[in-house]
Amino acid sequence: MIEYRTLKIALLGGGTVGSQVAKLLLDNAAELSSRIGAGIELAGIAVRDLDKPRDVELPAELYTTDAEQLILGADIVVELMGGIEPARSLILKALNSGADVITGNKQLLATHGAELFDVAEQVGAQLYYEAAVGGAIPIIRPLRDSLAGDSVTRILGIVNGTTNFILDRMDTFGDDLASALATATELGYAEADPTADIGGYDAAAKAALLAGLAFHTNVPLESVYREGIEDISKEQVERAQAMGFVVKLLAICERVIDPTTGEAGVSARVYPALVPREHPLAAVHGAHNAVFVQAHAAGDLMFYGAGAGGIQTASAVLGDVVSAARRHVAGGPGVAESTHANLPVLPVSAAVTRYHVTLHVTDQPGVLAEVSRLFAENGASIETVQQSSGAPAGAEDASPTATLVIGTHAALEASLAATVEALRASTAVTSIAHVLRIEGA
Amino acid sequence: MIEYRTLKIALLGGGTVGSQVAKLLLDNAAELSSRIGAGIELAGIAVRDLDKPRDVELPAELYTTDAEQLILGADIVVELMGGIEPARSLILKALNSGADVITGNKQLLATHGAELFDVAEQVGAQLYYEAAVGGAIPIIRPLRDSLAGDSVTRILGIVNGTTNFILDRMDTFGDDLASALATATELGYAEADPTADIGGYDAAAKAALLAGLAFHTNVPLESVYREGIEDISKEQVERAQAMGFVVKLLAICERVIDPTTGEAGVSARVYPALVPREHPLAAVHGAHNAVFVQAHAAGDLMFYGAGAGGIQTASAVLGDVVSAARRHVAGGPGVAESTHANLPVLPVSAAVTRYHVTLHVTDQPGVLAEVSRLFAENGASIETVQQSSGAPAGAEDASPTATLVIGTHAALEASLAATVEALRASTAVTSIAHVLRIEGA
Repeated sequence: MIEYRTLKIALLGGGTVGSQVAKLLLDNAAELSSRIGAGIELAGIAVRDLDKPRDVELPAELYTTDAEQLILGADIVVELMGGIEPARSLILKALNSGADVITGNKQLLATHGAELFDVAEQVGAQLYYEAAVGGAIPIIRPLRDSLAGDSVTRILGIVNGTTNFILDRMDTFGDDLASALATATELGYAEADPTADIGGYDAAAKAALLAGLAFHTNVPLESVYREGIEDISKEQVERAQAMGFVVKLLAICERVIDPTTGEAGVSARVYPALVPREHPLAAVHGAHNAVFVQAHAAGDLMFYGAGAGGIQTASAVLGDVVSAARRHVAGGPGVAESTHANLPVLPVSAAVTRYHVTLHVTDQPGVLAEVSRLFAENGASIETVQQSSGAPAGAEDASPTATLVIGTHAALEASLAATVEALRASTAVTSIAHVLRIEGA
Repeated sequence: MIEYRTLKIALLGGGTVGSQVAKLLLDNAAELSSRIGAGIELAGIAVRDLDKPRDVELPAELYTTDAEQLILGADIVVELMGGIEPARSLILKALNSGADVITGNKQLLATHGAELFDVAEQVGAQLYYEAAVGGAIPIIRPLRDSLAGDSVTRILGIVNGTTNFILDRMDTFGDDLASALATATELGYAEADPTADIGGYDAAAKAALLAGLAFHTNVPLESVYREGIEDISKEQVERAQAMGFVVKLLAICERVIDPTTGEAGVSARVYPALVPREHPLAAVHGAHNAVFVQAHAAGDLMFYGAGAGGIQTASAVLGDVVSAARRHVAGGPGVAESTHANLPVLPVSAAVTRYHVTLHVTDQPGVLAEVSRLFAENGASIETVQQSSGAPAGAEDASPTATLVIGTHAALEASLAATVEALRASTAVTSIAHVLRIEGA
């Protein structure tokens, strides 16, 4: 075997994932070198504060506060700082200096990915990001390479471990949202400010990345429709159970037809949805992640594993390090990022979905007929109706009411949303208790 | 973009998978060319019999019986003929002519893989085989690239759709083996001669490939321990159910310690095993495949999808075609096959597992003590005992008997096998009804 020079790796960020990456690089240097065909050396770890206590004990001389200096002379730069700046500037600097870059920074990629990939292409450097979606789960590489000869039609992803943990607690133990969140926080599955997770922002960034990759199209974060799980109640989860569903926060990426032009486009959206119990995603428990992919030829595929965690995510980073290092040794294509399809990204109104609407109505003859008419008028066809009498919990007056649970056939989101608007305006409807979409059925 | 010449693809084999590959190459030529950055052209399809009816209608002029001629001048050769010869000679010819080769031929790779990979390395050509394991499921690439920086510790794979379909029928509908097999044959999930599937031979070839890849070691097919599902009875499946297990035929690849030398080695084995209901593999129904991977850093991962089928497997082949074509355009490393670890492949006796033994014993005082003694003497520790009275079904004499179901703690396979031998020789034991190993618990 030809002897190659030792490849220098610069690590930006010494947090949970960063320290595990450093430890694995140091502990497994010999084994990794065998796999790569060249020596590798961790040149240093750039951090903001040299005195901050670290999760993992590493040689003190590796730490530096001078990220720019560390990047100079590095063959591979691993960015695990998170946030937009200075991560973006440092990655641009690294690419422009000819280094390949590995990042797990989904926010940065979802907002500035196009810029970073353009620069990488111009300078002939590569940008790897397996760790940005699904933690340890290999999903970027399978989508990019394994399915490169196929056509992805839809992705349904449980891509946020915190919300899956919370919804799974509600489903399994009957917890309400607040106590499930408290448990998640206590066990370290939720951060002090859980907004990014609970609100679906984290999942939306991942949806943008997955949709872009699957459909060879630039999907900006702001084009991803987003709802969080803030309003999911114990009763909703129980009602879903009774009807054979489980509530999951899904990142949905679909090839859809624009209803106005008839042209193909991309829909990327995040919301809590009803998933049938027999769907493989329903069996994804705790803080696990899973990405369910439907492709024209391959059919249904699912990728399952730990969606977060320092050492788990470090596995994905190390896989990228080996890929980048092999490319340094042998040259060649590396990541083939491509937006050649350049499909329009469509608003949520263009998605075709099914609604599940729970309504409180006045308990009078003709109410079901009136409600049915509103669905039909708006182009939504009813599949199932369940009617039960009795006031909703918390109702204080004694006027007779009934609860209607209506499931629709698949229809345009725009029609379903218009139906809900019409129901809201109807005098027959006392209140709309909840609306959830059904996915995977 | 630089213009590249059109890459010529030669297809060997026009069967179920081959015709779907040809159809996808023809139908999606433009899209594939965009992804590759160069034109691709299906140069021809080599078949044995030009007059044989084909699954898919394709231009007649593509077919030829002259495989050797077709290979000359091809940039990429796709071998989907199956069997050892002439597939082996043709692949060697293709590699030696500088073509990259894509194959789905697990038998060939499991028996002559070392030779083929050696030749590929010598001539600087590449050999891709995503379709050889798990049909459409991307598993080769994730093991090779995504987990390249991690250490795989164990793989549990449902890699044979026919046997999973049969065992799932037995579990779900209470079928016996014969009628489940009849249904599988009727629905096209089993071949006229089902020996390769039922006997575990197909799974063993896949276990050899997975173990080789996961542990960077040459694992010859003959070193894979193999049992089929021929003897799995309806009662065994029912008893497993009652105890919270499901019976699955597993391909198991593990890093184990050689009990005699204390050195690390590889164990590859195939047998029907008891899998806990709550394990993700238990939810793999019908003819689906799934590969459950445990790695040091990544933790538990699972890859799920269609394990067979013409168009599904064609998806995996096309992914390899795109990878090979990109490498032709950009040069570079391609597949990094490596047996650098070169671990010893150990016999099944070195595996650590748990046994589940169902015994008929004489119903007399002291029998349980005697049986317990035999376990202890052979180094197997009992975890659970269930005792029930009554003769086994079909017993004709009236001597009082009882049934013991004994679950062991984890122990060396050698100790467990020795225990079963001792039980067989004991006068207290009337018969051993069945022995199954527990995996994934």
